[in-house]
Amino acid sequence: MNGQHVISIPELTARVEAIFRKAGFSAEHADALSRVLVAGERDGCKSHGIYRVEGCLRTLARGKVVPDAVPVVSDEEGAIVRVNAGGGFSNAAFEAGLPKLVERTGALGVAAMVVNDCTHFAALWPEIEAITEHGLAALAMCPSYATVAPVGGCEPLLGTNPLAFGWPRAGHPFVFDFATSVAARGEIELRRRAGESLPQGWALGPDGSPTRNPEEALAGAMLPFGSHKGSAISTMIELLAGAMIGDLTSREALDWLGDTSLSPSHGELILAFDPARFANGREGSPEARAEMLFDAIVGQGARLPSQRRFAAREVAESNGIVLTAEENARLERLEREGLAAVS
Amino acid sequence: MNGQHVISIPELTARVEAIFRKAGFSAEHADALSRVLVAGERDGCKSHGIYRVEGCLRTLARGKVVPDAVPVVSDEEGAIVRVNAGGGFSNAAFEAGLPKLVERTGALGVAAMVVNDCTHFAALWPEIEAITEHGLAALAMCPSYATVAPVGGCEPLLGTNPLAFGWPRAGHPFVFDFATSVAARGEIELRRRAGESLPQGWALGPDGSPTRNPEEALAGAMLPFGSHKGSAISTMIELLAGAMIGDLTSREALDWLGDTSLSPSHGELILAFDPARFANGREGSPEARAEMLFDAIVGQGARLPSQRRFAAREVAESNGIVLTAEENARLERLEREGLAAVS
Repeated sequence: MNGQHVISIPELTARVEAIFRKAGFSAEHADALSRVLVAGERDGCKSHGIYRVEGCLRTLARGKVVPDAVPVVSDEEGAIVRVNAGGGFSNAAFEAGLPKLVERTGALGVAAMVVNDCTHFAALWPEIEAITEHGLAALAMCPSYATVAPVGGCEPLLGTNPLAFGWPRAGHPFVFDFATSVAARGEIELRRRAGESLPQGWALGPDGSPTRNPEEALAGAMLPFGSHKGSAISTMIELLAGAMIGDLTSREALDWLGDTSLSPSHGELILAFDPARFANGREGSPEARAEMLFDAIVGQGARLPSQRRFAAREVAESNGIVLTAEENARLERLEREGLAAVS
Repeated sequence: MNGQHVISIPELTARVEAIFRKAGFSAEHADALSRVLVAGERDGCKSHGIYRVEGCLRTLARGKVVPDAVPVVSDEEGAIVRVNAGGGFSNAAFEAGLPKLVERTGALGVAAMVVNDCTHFAALWPEIEAITEHGLAALAMCPSYATVAPVGGCEPLLGTNPLAFGWPRAGHPFVFDFATSVAARGEIELRRRAGESLPQGWALGPDGSPTRNPEEALAGAMLPFGSHKGSAISTMIELLAGAMIGDLTSREALDWLGDTSLSPSHGELILAFDPARFANGREGSPEARAEMLFDAIVGQGARLPSQRRFAAREVAESNGIVLTAEENARLERLEREGLAAVS
């Protein structure tokens, strides 16, 4: 189609990495950031794709992320692997802690990675997939900034607080990663840009009444998924991945930032499980029994989560990533103007 | 009101314990079972109250639970505390493993209890509360038997798969415990007994189409809460607390049992977290920061989970438990006839 721009995954990664380098990020951060954003684009997750490059740069321009922070992995023993991101983006911090998380999980059966003092904008599934590659199961969660009202309330207090899980498989793992709000904030933002209205039940306006207007929703409060159950899970995420790890809750993150257009600061909690150690030689391997479950799900016509994402990945790996003329123009502007484009 | 029977918590516990003893359960099991069932009744959770005494006896009468099983706690090190229930009810097995779970969590920061080879019928919140009493946070989950269709499917495959979480507080803890189906099976059963129809969206009939008839729902499939997100969480529970721990998935549990009127056999996974170790001296105690979150929830008119349950508990502790004439008559029949009443 007219104006479409097809680009290979390595080419797009190199372009995004160069934008981050030019803006002042260290090589380590530019590398980690470009890989995770292009992974979103590759997998057809536009809401976590390269449109977020601008948000990352805006966060830097406003002094809310340290572009050359060096993540520090603590040398404690036990089942907690602690990584201090030093105010940098979380992605490089996660990668710094991963080898120790894998080692501790193998040694103890279950272990937790805590990432503190990071700036966060990414989906959790790239981290989940990095853990399942080691044959481990993983559960990850983090606060966000306060944009979601608890069920029964009307004011933003909880974040969109993603919950993600993965189970290792040959080929693509079993992975889910979703906002505990009805919708991800990025989905509302994309509808605002497209001039579309929201489905019912997604949000409350600034006056606390239901709204289908994306602008009102972004100024008001989103709602949790699954009514009081989703609200409870989102509250658990504030507790475990906020209060418990000594890092910001979603309200504190918003207070610190004062703005939902930047990447929020907070921590993250990631649990890893070694199925072989849990099963401990009991009858039937965990992997084989999990496959029976997946077969039974697919066999009755239901889908496994992330299948659309994996299908998009396969297409992108074969044929490259398709950018619209507008997306490519935005990228070219960032390449030309760097930080000035967002200041 | 006519026919109501008011009884103190210790008196009701003693009556239920005597029924279990007479039926052949060991003192340890009769004690644990009676406490957990009366706790449900005390907290106004009729679906997990003394109406389940009959189900426990029926499970014994059909030879699907070992009444004098002695739980064995393995002496492994690491972060996994493994308890083999030996085919007995889970309650005593949990209590056998709890001290080691508390010790391991304190030593390592996070630890997991695996209960294998148990028969299970209880809510998870009594276990959660037993852990929060030690100042720890806890997350528990288990399969059930296959009564829930994955979203997009139409056949029972998943269980009602409860997910429960607790956070320690002075006074009552923050606790949620819910089925990952839209409703708990017990709620459908109670509506069947009351001759009421179901709200829309709870279940599919045996032909795979939506139904509001409790009989059809019990013969068909329930639906997960929160659409594909709840379906994904329920699948995670099958993986972590079924396949991973080398114990039965909900489908395997149903195949083994052949009947949903008995207590299912499977395992259970419980994670415990030490907030003090996670926070590691960072600014603001986890407990104090959690209270700020709870205040903000309550302050905007929303409720914390389990508040109705705690309110019922306080009334029961002061005034005793109120049984209807029918409930008391059922109990008297079980006291008189023992196992013969369910054979």
